[in-house]
Amino acid sequence: MLEPCDLLIEAGHVVPVVPHAVVLPDHAVAVTAGRIMAVLPIAEARARFRPAAVISRPQHALLPGLVNLHCHAAMTVMRGLADDLPLMRWLQEHIWPTEAAFVGPELVQDGITLAAAEMLRGGVTTVNDMYFFPDVAAQAFARAGMRATIGLIVIEFPSAWAQSPAEYFDKGLSVYGECKDLPGIRFAFAPHAPYTVSDESFERIRVLSDQLDLPVHVHVHETAFEVDDAVRQRNERPLARLKRLGLVNSNLIAVHMTQLSDAEIQLVGEQGVSIAHCPESNLKLASGFAPIERLRRAGANVAIGTDGCASNNDLDLLGEIRTAALLAKAVAQDAAAIDAAYALQMATLNGARALGLDAEIGSIEVGKSADLITVDLSRFDVLPVYSAISQLVYASNRRDVCDVWVMGEPRVQDGALCHFDPNALAELARRWGQRIAAR
Amino acid sequence: MLEPCDLLIEAGHVVPVVPHAVVLPDHAVAVTAGRIMAVLPIAEARARFRPAAVISRPQHALLPGLVNLHCHAAMTVMRGLADDLPLMRWLQEHIWPTEAAFVGPELVQDGITLAAAEMLRGGVTTVNDMYFFPDVAAQAFARAGMRATIGLIVIEFPSAWAQSPAEYFDKGLSVYGECKDLPGIRFAFAPHAPYTVSDESFERIRVLSDQLDLPVHVHVHETAFEVDDAVRQRNERPLARLKRLGLVNSNLIAVHMTQLSDAEIQLVGEQGVSIAHCPESNLKLASGFAPIERLRRAGANVAIGTDGCASNNDLDLLGEIRTAALLAKAVAQDAAAIDAAYALQMATLNGARALGLDAEIGSIEVGKSADLITVDLSRFDVLPVYSAISQLVYASNRRDVCDVWVMGEPRVQDGALCHFDPNALAELARRWGQRIAAR
Repeated sequence: MLEPCDLLIEAGHVVPVVPHAVVLPDHAVAVTAGRIMAVLPIAEARARFRPAAVISRPQHALLPGLVNLHCHAAMTVMRGLADDLPLMRWLQEHIWPTEAAFVGPELVQDGITLAAAEMLRGGVTTVNDMYFFPDVAAQAFARAGMRATIGLIVIEFPSAWAQSPAEYFDKGLSVYGECKDLPGIRFAFAPHAPYTVSDESFERIRVLSDQLDLPVHVHVHETAFEVDDAVRQRNERPLARLKRLGLVNSNLIAVHMTQLSDAEIQLVGEQGVSIAHCPESNLKLASGFAPIERLRRAGANVAIGTDGCASNNDLDLLGEIRTAALLAKAVAQDAAAIDAAYALQMATLNGARALGLDAEIGSIEVGKSADLITVDLSRFDVLPVYSAISQLVYASNRRDVCDVWVMGEPRVQDGALCHFDPNALAELARRWGQRIAAR
Repeated sequence: MLEPCDLLIEAGHVVPVVPHAVVLPDHAVAVTAGRIMAVLPIAEARARFRPAAVISRPQHALLPGLVNLHCHAAMTVMRGLADDLPLMRWLQEHIWPTEAAFVGPELVQDGITLAAAEMLRGGVTTVNDMYFFPDVAAQAFARAGMRATIGLIVIEFPSAWAQSPAEYFDKGLSVYGECKDLPGIRFAFAPHAPYTVSDESFERIRVLSDQLDLPVHVHVHETAFEVDDAVRQRNERPLARLKRLGLVNSNLIAVHMTQLSDAEIQLVGEQGVSIAHCPESNLKLASGFAPIERLRRAGANVAIGTDGCASNNDLDLLGEIRTAALLAKAVAQDAAAIDAAYALQMATLNGARALGLDAEIGSIEVGKSADLITVDLSRFDVLPVYSAISQLVYASNRRDVCDVWVMGEPRVQDGALCHFDPNALAELARRWGQRIAAR
């Protein structure tokens, strides 16, 4: 008597992430009602299940959907707007004036639509986002069928979204109330950075994040200037300040973290802080090198983010994994640092853990949500495959992502987005480019 | 009266590399007998030429073919064979035993066929290669229709190719004599590295390279261990030794160069040495960070190589340009270091100059060979295009290379290789993977 299931995905190389560093050759994943029912050899799966649909990918890897732990998704419309500039000129002369002129519900809606399509197409099923208009963001990600943790931004200066810290909190909390039950949508507090947020706001966030059990998503120690300036102005390093304010704990998602003392590495390790490592942004803005092998060894939960398109210039998490794995070795002066399996774990399970979603996503395990992707490993320029995990990390290409499911629902099939027209997206991006360039 | 031409290529963004940092919107390149006859606005081109064929790419960039300045092309069959290992374990336990068991004309022939197809598909039209069996290599690259400078390898230990330094020289020189007139094929001397080549051999290479005016392609200062070991054993840094032996001059292509004193940077700058910067290999093997912005400022001719597939793990030069541009900024602690235009110049004109080919290739200029590529910038995930050069360097993907010409002959059309069957290539790579894995 065969068991029914909604979907059986058969793949040449199943990479479940849990157990660690394992590749299951010629295995299948059975999915029903959006959840993983079984992971087993293909022959056994065929003998056990009567699937409503079968996807067979004998030359592909099947792995958990990727988790992008730091993004400003709406900034896709500013991709490549201003490159090769020092951070403060980049912000003050280009990004901030552009934001002042254009940021509003329309930019956020369109930018997130473009970003969600780009991420889904490249195998990213979950994103941790920070930007203005979280209400628009929540709706746009939900409509795109992507999981997103939306940052409730808090910053001391006015924007099109809110005029005062009090208004940021009020509007953020009401968005949380209105949107928290949208499918796949979660929330975090997103105080922008220590240099743009007051002690009072951080204290309020600590109380609220404890009450609501939400992560706190914040840029920390991105540059040496940030740290030095804080010491000059307050005689306190930003991380020490966050610790004093009670925020250095396992709810913290600390983005960048390129400037760390030995004691700070030990602190965040002991406290189980999550690190959103954004290697390409850190390189491009010359921010520095995050010591991620040392953070990993210290016990921190290291995950990966693309950052926004204006400082990367894409939302290619598969490429970012590769950069992270390569860079970590040279930074650690150890070619064995951050091996391929750990690099993949950073972009899946560790990202899920940072968001409090590791019981739900981040690995292919029975009972978890079917957030799954396949990557084609059959092209001659990624062959031979001595290790599927190695090829995924060091040689694969986001264009080779073939299928994507979120909660068991298809988002990409055979390399094509299910719910977006790429030509319409291109036209949308072009129109924004013209508007912004005309300024 | 219209002038005839063989081919008119019209593109939305022509990036000629010379003049520097320029994008010519809606321009065309006219080609006859494999040479560039004119670069002009599309409307003027249509009024002036009667082309035998027209390729119209309104959404694409048209740029010079890329030059990969350091490769061990035959090693494609070892892609991902052994990752995440320290350099000496990687070499001694994996690469060298595999080479001892398998390297011969068959591996070199097949490995180079795979490599040439991968590079052409990704927009690389010229490669500077170093491996055993240069006779087989020259024939294989010529057959693939790709420009290659073949290294005449010299190393003090025996291999399947030659048993003694004298035999390496004899066989190398006879390959040079036999193959130097193959279309697109050039030669260089390729002493493997200071730690594997004697003073006597280097002296002979200096004399021969002067006589024949051939470049000298050598790994130099790849790791701190190499430099420290040389100082221990000989009390002389490798670069100082090459200088004493008369090799530090504009014929030298120094690969890696991650470990350099201020005086060494000044020396190679003053002497106009070419640097083959291989950032992904240097990161992956934890070799170190080449100071390429300082080398550039000192006057060195900095170009880019992928290194071999066993330490990269691909021959994706477009991706390598991006890594080089990103990494240089963090290494120089300056977000303005190695801007996009210079990064592209490194992978085109500077590579050509290193090979003594800058009068022939490396830019889109009248009279030069029509070694040209187009890259699709119309996909929504690389839009908008504020600057085509920025998008090429920071956001484009080797899968988006659309057309490739070498000496005016098509090698890739509409994203498909003209002279290779991708399925046959995949099968070839798989068979080698099985043979090597079975060992």
